[in-house]
Amino acid sequence: MPGNTDSPDRLAAAHALDPLFAPASVAVLGASGDPLKIGGRPIKFLKSHGYAGTIHPVNPKGGEIQGLPALRSVGELPRGVDHAIVALPASAVLDAAAACAERGVRAMTIFSAGFAETGPEGAAMQARLSALARDSGMRIIGPNCMGVMNFRIGMIASFAFMVDLGLPRLGRTALVSQSGAFGGQALVMANRRGLPLGAWVTTGNECDVEMADCIAYFAGDDQTDVIMGYMEGCRSPGKLVAALALARERGKRVVMVKAGSSDVGKAAAQSHTGALAGNDRVYDSLFRQYGVYRADSIESFFDAAYAAGSGKRMPQGKVGVFTVSGGVGVLMADVAERQGLELAPLPQPAQDTLRALLPLAAVRNPVDGTAQIWSDMALFRRFVRTMLSEGRYEAVVFFLTAMPYSPPLQQPIIDIFTELRQEFPDLALVLSMLAPPALQDTLAERGYLVIDDASRAIEALAALHVLSQPSAGPVDRTKLPRLAHMAELTTGNEHAAKQALAQAGIPMLPERAVADPDEACRAARELGYPVVLKALSADIVHKSELGAVELGIADEAGLRAAWDAIAGRVAQAAPQARLDGMLLAPMAPPGVEMILGVQRDPVFGPVVMVGMGGIYAELLDDVALRIAPVDHDAARAMVRELKAFPLLDGARGRPRADLEALADAIVRLSVFAGVHADRLESIDINPLRVFEAGKGAAALDAVLLARAAREEETA
Amino acid sequence: MPGNTDSPDRLAAAHALDPLFAPASVAVLGASGDPLKIGGRPIKFLKSHGYAGTIHPVNPKGGEIQGLPALRSVGELPRGVDHAIVALPASAVLDAAAACAERGVRAMTIFSAGFAETGPEGAAMQARLSALARDSGMRIIGPNCMGVMNFRIGMIASFAFMVDLGLPRLGRTALVSQSGAFGGQALVMANRRGLPLGAWVTTGNECDVEMADCIAYFAGDDQTDVIMGYMEGCRSPGKLVAALALARERGKRVVMVKAGSSDVGKAAAQSHTGALAGNDRVYDSLFRQYGVYRADSIESFFDAAYAAGSGKRMPQGKVGVFTVSGGVGVLMADVAERQGLELAPLPQPAQDTLRALLPLAAVRNPVDGTAQIWSDMALFRRFVRTMLSEGRYEAVVFFLTAMPYSPPLQQPIIDIFTELRQEFPDLALVLSMLAPPALQDTLAERGYLVIDDASRAIEALAALHVLSQPSAGPVDRTKLPRLAHMAELTTGNEHAAKQALAQAGIPMLPERAVADPDEACRAARELGYPVVLKALSADIVHKSELGAVELGIADEAGLRAAWDAIAGRVAQAAPQARLDGMLLAPMAPPGVEMILGVQRDPVFGPVVMVGMGGIYAELLDDVALRIAPVDHDAARAMVRELKAFPLLDGARGRPRADLEALADAIVRLSVFAGVHADRLESIDINPLRVFEAGKGAAALDAVLLARAAREEETA
Repeated sequence: MPGNTDSPDRLAAAHALDPLFAPASVAVLGASGDPLKIGGRPIKFLKSHGYAGTIHPVNPKGGEIQGLPALRSVGELPRGVDHAIVALPASAVLDAAAACAERGVRAMTIFSAGFAETGPEGAAMQARLSALARDSGMRIIGPNCMGVMNFRIGMIASFAFMVDLGLPRLGRTALVSQSGAFGGQALVMANRRGLPLGAWVTTGNECDVEMADCIAYFAGDDQTDVIMGYMEGCRSPGKLVAALALARERGKRVVMVKAGSSDVGKAAAQSHTGALAGNDRVYDSLFRQYGVYRADSIESFFDAAYAAGSGKRMPQGKVGVFTVSGGVGVLMADVAERQGLELAPLPQPAQDTLRALLPLAAVRNPVDGTAQIWSDMALFRRFVRTMLSEGRYEAVVFFLTAMPYSPPLQQPIIDIFTELRQEFPDLALVLSMLAPPALQDTLAERGYLVIDDASRAIEALAALHVLSQPSAGPVDRTKLPRLAHMAELTTGNEHAAKQALAQAGIPMLPERAVADPDEACRAARELGYPVVLKALSADIVHKSELGAVELGIADEAGLRAAWDAIAGRVAQAAPQARLDGMLLAPMAPPGVEMILGVQRDPVFGPVVMVGMGGIYAELLDDVALRIAPVDHDAARAMVRELKAFPLLDGARGRPRADLEALADAIVRLSVFAGVHADRLESIDINPLRVFEAGKGAAALDAVLLARAAREEETA
Repeated sequence: MPGNTDSPDRLAAAHALDPLFAPASVAVLGASGDPLKIGGRPIKFLKSHGYAGTIHPVNPKGGEIQGLPALRSVGELPRGVDHAIVALPASAVLDAAAACAERGVRAMTIFSAGFAETGPEGAAMQARLSALARDSGMRIIGPNCMGVMNFRIGMIASFAFMVDLGLPRLGRTALVSQSGAFGGQALVMANRRGLPLGAWVTTGNECDVEMADCIAYFAGDDQTDVIMGYMEGCRSPGKLVAALALARERGKRVVMVKAGSSDVGKAAAQSHTGALAGNDRVYDSLFRQYGVYRADSIESFFDAAYAAGSGKRMPQGKVGVFTVSGGVGVLMADVAERQGLELAPLPQPAQDTLRALLPLAAVRNPVDGTAQIWSDMALFRRFVRTMLSEGRYEAVVFFLTAMPYSPPLQQPIIDIFTELRQEFPDLALVLSMLAPPALQDTLAERGYLVIDDASRAIEALAALHVLSQPSAGPVDRTKLPRLAHMAELTTGNEHAAKQALAQAGIPMLPERAVADPDEACRAARELGYPVVLKALSADIVHKSELGAVELGIADEAGLRAAWDAIAGRVAQAAPQARLDGMLLAPMAPPGVEMILGVQRDPVFGPVVMVGMGGIYAELLDDVALRIAPVDHDAARAMVRELKAFPLLDGARGRPRADLEALADAIVRLSVFAGVHADRLESIDINPLRVFEAGKGAAALDAVLLARAAREEETA
């Protein structure tokens, strides 16, 4: 169940993938003596990258393969081989896998294509692989994947030819990709950009081991600090949530790419992968909940991971910008503002010091040393040092243009920045410059993030800022309100929906369902005029547009007239609608109209939504989502996410709305949705009117839809 | 005057910079024999890059400098040297410049710093340079600049050491930068990225030649197709507008970076340059009006210029995406949607053809050939060719991952893509791939845009799409409404403001200013009840909040009571306010409330603004701006720019608003603002209520502020 991460053995479960990532022995099924062939490459890679475990080539012809004694069959393998690599035609995979399970092989990587991605027949074969993994306990990665690499031990269980282009530097970042094609691309990018990696895995068709399992593995891995995830869809939402929770708990930084935010993108994602894409905004909120940074391009994926690897923290997002070109400083300030970073001005004494050093400099922040600063490197040193020591920044970006190409400047640059790094070990320091590769490498080794483009440098820090935020993490279910027992989910007309929601504690006005004008008049006397009268019918959704609502009815005569008027309009406009009488309610006090809703997400189940009412908000899609249930903190965070939040919070002289009542309604709706997840299609409270602070709220209309019977049957 | 581009000799004026960019002879003042010194570098660069004109080193010591005979003084120069480069201390510049003017030197580049950027003394020296240029006709670029390069003729009038790192390939793009530091950076970037350049210029302090002059020059230059502008501020808005108009008229593509969109950025921009930054959104609208693409990062500046250099057009923004990795295709679709490009599905017959070729492919768009397509390059060819011939796209991006590193694939890739380029010469074709540099170069030479990052590839096409849009261009002043003659701009209370605006043709209700309750009652009888009564006072701005407005007054008794109530509340809440009687108006029909305004921009003068009324719109800053005056087309475009435009256009069952009445009010307000530009500080029509289509609009409230007298005196 999503959100439930309380299993005691999560860490142990994560370690179950040790045979895959850190095997003592590897078998290669379909082993080839030709190091260019798919069955030859992993042997070549394992040998050439220093894998120290035992390698067992398996090939019916036996003999020697790439200098190693080959076994003729799986049956000849010693018992308990850790990791078998399968480079066989799809048709031979099932038997081989079964034989491996038989011999006690602990984990398996299947390169072979020809499974679920090809149609129903392949899907059936894949289902048998899944069953084999489940029954035998042998973990399977793939089929249709590019394999697994653990660079620390030279364990290159892959046929990716990109390995021949050079491996990335060794580091504490693990990359998990569902796509093999992207995995290959990523390997080259990491190598080119100097992004250090510790491990790399592609999960392909995920017949057993999913991306989420790999994230959980690296969350439990003491040699990993940063996890990069390239995601196309999610098979087991519970696993994903648990993996992200574990990563958060263990202080790992997680950077994800999840494509599919656009309509075209969603359609394409569904055509591409078997996994369901789900509502993209649910991923957004899930990632936010667990402190994951979601990158929106491949470049920012790598930049964010690179920044995350610095280990630096910048919870407040306070950035200093040093530039030698005022205009680029301004451009960086623009990007910083868009990205939610704060370019706080230097304290006045520091500004005075800098101005004394260099009268023409801009000294607020961005600090612009101007081209003049290059003419005196001792001045440069004092100037920049003052900025770092007095600026109270968490991070400083130095935009140096292409000046570091100037030979006489290079040694002074190295000296100054080496010294600064030692003196300010906690700051995140970024060099944005065009420079000879050797100079870049030297300063990267000294602990600088080197990112040539100025905007990307700022964006990388924005990612670090997001990753430094305290995140909410899993919902504490003990703090959720317990709902009164409800035998069966009643749906039907507005009154039935409201009764069900009222039981869950959603605030309502004292409404009455009334069968005829006389009963309406009796009820109105009790409630007190003025009143509201509405047609009650499960068949009418847009009551106002049909004229099925009368507001502000002042007295009994008005009430009887309103009854006739509504009945007449409904009879004319919706003659087939079944009328269950009418609903009588007191007029609600003024307030801010919100929309509260629940939708069933195909991946994550019930998702609770809050948005501002009104057509403008609807047009701009100003809503916040969460996987249900949510606690009060999460509900408050949802409300604060709305662009229109200031309108609730007393902006421009408005009364502050009862935010606690709103949050409580969100929590209760989400708990209600969680309890009835199986039966529920959607809930729509539109509007929930939120009164002034301290005065509560009330659901003025509600529609509750059960899942269609047909869908239940096929489910 | 901004918007006025009707000067007949614009092109001739642009050619006035020929001596600067294409000189037959160059003098170097402060010439040095040391090719590392500022006075030595330009001589070295001119010689080594094959400048064929005469070079005259000038140095009091005379003799020979870098193999050329040196002159001892400016007086020894032959008459009519085209271009003098000044590498002297600031203190020596003025005399040297005057001597050059005396000798008939046509143009001058001054490297020397120490002018307006250093304070009042330097500014005074610079003003004398400006005067010299004005009086003598000798054009001056700088001071405090990095110089000018015309790569076509090896005319490197610069001391930028980056020239030694290698020059960009020769091309038809000109780069104009106000910042020298950025200019140096840009030179290295163009070289690294293979962006071909024809010319490069930095304008520094702009004592005479401004960025706008250079844009105008390249607009008139037949060897230039693309103009890149790096802008920090604008000195002469009229020149800038005229230059952009000329560029548009001559079909040049203009790509600009203009920093300063954030608050921090604006503050920094003002501290950095003498030029005023102005309201950043005015630049946005100006650029839009003239079809300029505004880049928001240095990287997108280069990518956009690179794409623009292809010369391809994509007015509809129809893009096909071919990928071998479904997930990246989805990511590209996401970016395309954000950037306003259309990923239209392939026509069904083409989809069927592709599916027949490769059953596992995704064939809609993005088209995903999957990794499988690499196994049969003949199939690859047929597959991709079908997509191009049947897709009706303007541009196609191929995302090929790092597979082109695979040696056996490289020749087939070259063959296939060479053939495709020949067969589809009009399409913009982009290769997004990681590949060996030689392969990239080969395909770039064949006419492909090669951009490694997939998101940036899409963004570059989005820039090309913007650059392919028909743009409005200058306002046709003959089509603007002519306003009734107005002797003097009357300001004061609401009634006075409304009378002035009514004269300009802004629609009003038939309101009456009334002095006492009796007059109010007489007026109400003529207008007919119900009526609205408002306090009339120049001292009260927020009438509603003060209780100074009564709506829906039904009869005479109500009117008298309303008078007393308003008078009482005003007396209590604003006892010092001078009351000029009250304003009586009929109730306005329902409609959409808009805000119309004028603000005086420090750079561009009066700017007209339209936005949706209501606090939500205000919160989101949903407004559109234009430099006044605007014609009806521009006014309609402004309204369509609003995020809330659908609400005016009949979204979700609302009545369509009278868009023509709204546009006409915008036009008339803008013309009014233009006429009274000198006297006007701001106008605020809030709200303009726009009735249903065909029923017009009315300004329900208006505030008109004249420029403060103090400001006028100092102006």
